[in-house]
Amino acid sequence: MTFELTILGSSSAVPTSKRNLTAHVLNAHERFFLIDCGEGTQIQIRKNKIRFGKIDHIFISHLHGDHIFGLFGLISTFNLLKRDKDLHIYSHSELENILNKHLEYFERNISYKIIYHHLNPKISEMIYEDRKIIVETIPLKHRVPTCGFKFTEKQHLRNLKKNVVNDFKIPISKIQGIKEGNDFINDNSEIILNSSLTLPPYKVRSYAYCTDTAYSEKIIPIIENVDLLFHEATFCKKLKQQAKLTFHSTSEDAAKIAYQAKVKKLIIGHFSARYKDVTPLLDEARAIFQNTFSAEDGETHIIELSRED
Amino acid sequence: MTFELTILGSSSAVPTSKRNLTAHVLNAHERFFLIDCGEGTQIQIRKNKIRFGKIDHIFISHLHGDHIFGLFGLISTFNLLKRDKDLHIYSHSELENILNKHLEYFERNISYKIIYHHLNPKISEMIYEDRKIIVETIPLKHRVPTCGFKFTEKQHLRNLKKNVVNDFKIPISKIQGIKEGNDFINDNSEIILNSSLTLPPYKVRSYAYCTDTAYSEKIIPIIENVDLLFHEATFCKKLKQQAKLTFHSTSEDAAKIAYQAKVKKLIIGHFSARYKDVTPLLDEARAIFQNTFSAEDGETHIIELSRED
Repeated sequence: MTFELTILGSSSAVPTSKRNLTAHVLNAHERFFLIDCGEGTQIQIRKNKIRFGKIDHIFISHLHGDHIFGLFGLISTFNLLKRDKDLHIYSHSELENILNKHLEYFERNISYKIIYHHLNPKISEMIYEDRKIIVETIPLKHRVPTCGFKFTEKQHLRNLKKNVVNDFKIPISKIQGIKEGNDFINDNSEIILNSSLTLPPYKVRSYAYCTDTAYSEKIIPIIENVDLLFHEATFCKKLKQQAKLTFHSTSEDAAKIAYQAKVKKLIIGHFSARYKDVTPLLDEARAIFQNTFSAEDGETHIIELSRED
Repeated sequence: MTFELTILGSSSAVPTSKRNLTAHVLNAHERFFLIDCGEGTQIQIRKNKIRFGKIDHIFISHLHGDHIFGLFGLISTFNLLKRDKDLHIYSHSELENILNKHLEYFERNISYKIIYHHLNPKISEMIYEDRKIIVETIPLKHRVPTCGFKFTEKQHLRNLKKNVVNDFKIPISKIQGIKEGNDFINDNSEIILNSSLTLPPYKVRSYAYCTDTAYSEKIIPIIENVDLLFHEATFCKKLKQQAKLTFHSTSEDAAKIAYQAKVKKLIIGHFSARYKDVTPLLDEARAIFQNTFSAEDGETHIIELSRED
């Protein structure tokens, strides 16, 4: 029941000696979702001991080079490793043309299928769903069409208390219903209340990824109450004008969004290469939203399980 | 008078957690020649504290992704840093089309000019010359048209011994001639032999870069006697067949070429990702050519100055 985020790259457009270009991996129940794929992502995947074969879904926020130039090498490596599983890419439709032209020249005989899912950056919609997880888009405000992504666990069932199946002689056919909240009527027609049989379910966990974007309060209803928010903070508050001009955010902007959306934890990143030390940005954000951390390449943020009340 | 090679990436097609994709930087008299540009090269340039602004010439051996996918990001970073100097790229002509299509989408307003130099992979020819250095191509034997590169210092002049200008009252107008080997005739018509006035010149230094390539004795006359040879050794000798099939070399192949070409020092690299430890490849090469080293990311090989006899 893992739900953890690993930062592969935390720099903005120009990498530094310590910060690679943007890429995150969310491990949600052993699905490894790759989010953006800046140059060097495949090398960071290796360094962080994530298995290439686990990555089946890649989510691309927008078509600026620092978020996609790692795709060329990753696609090629998958091919060299003789991947045969489908690879799903969720992005602006134009990426399909770009990659098709690229593949035509560089990877004529590709060993697997790429399935493109075109995003509509104007609305929030569900773009992925399986038994455990859903993924929705978050319309962001950047110079080109851009989507953030929200990853949410599906509602967990209640958990059976220890030994209740034996103690109350519950037939297997009834277990699913009890996990869903039903009481149990035994052979003597006695009603055993659900609360005697089960523990409350685990809380649903969620992660929202918002980059690149200017300050936009429109995203607040979508990301409200998430456990973990990544929000870009390319600039410190002094460079507010620069942020506005380039459709990026300041550390204060990120914290204001986190505060208003009542998220549990904020990570800021996508730092301009001018910041050798990001402590001032972190301090600025923490003045508004205390539970803020800076994105650091190779760091993993675990969202622990906890039960509903 | 620096002449030193820094290895930025030593892996073959698939990078590992320790080995980046192919790229070398030769610092020859403060000209920083970038040779190949695999994914992640700009990050390796940063990590190795090489200034982007020093790189004016990029030499591309062939158009396989592991040798060029770093160009997209590097070109973009140069643009973001508002480069205005021309950038020269030496490669197969097709790269110009690839980069033009790429620039059309990703970098419409580029702040500098890219000047393409198309290589003929069938012959060895001089492709670059300045006051100090010449660069020649080395036709290699790979699945696609491929060129190696030989970087050679121009002939050095003799050096004046200490104090001779004062001691013999040599006018400035005569100095160049004496450095070129002339004797000096003083005001009393005495002939001062050049050997009394000068030290022998420094030996010309040279570096040859040969990857990707199958074993090819045709390159021997071109690389004969170089101070430093980089020759690929993708496979160990046991995988000779695999090497033949893919037009790559084994560690033995590389060493045989080094031995026959009487080079001074050999570096092997472009290692298959299957080798966690390349010691066996190094041992195989050293059995044939003792002065062999393995390419290691971030290592610099200095070619020291020494005088002719």
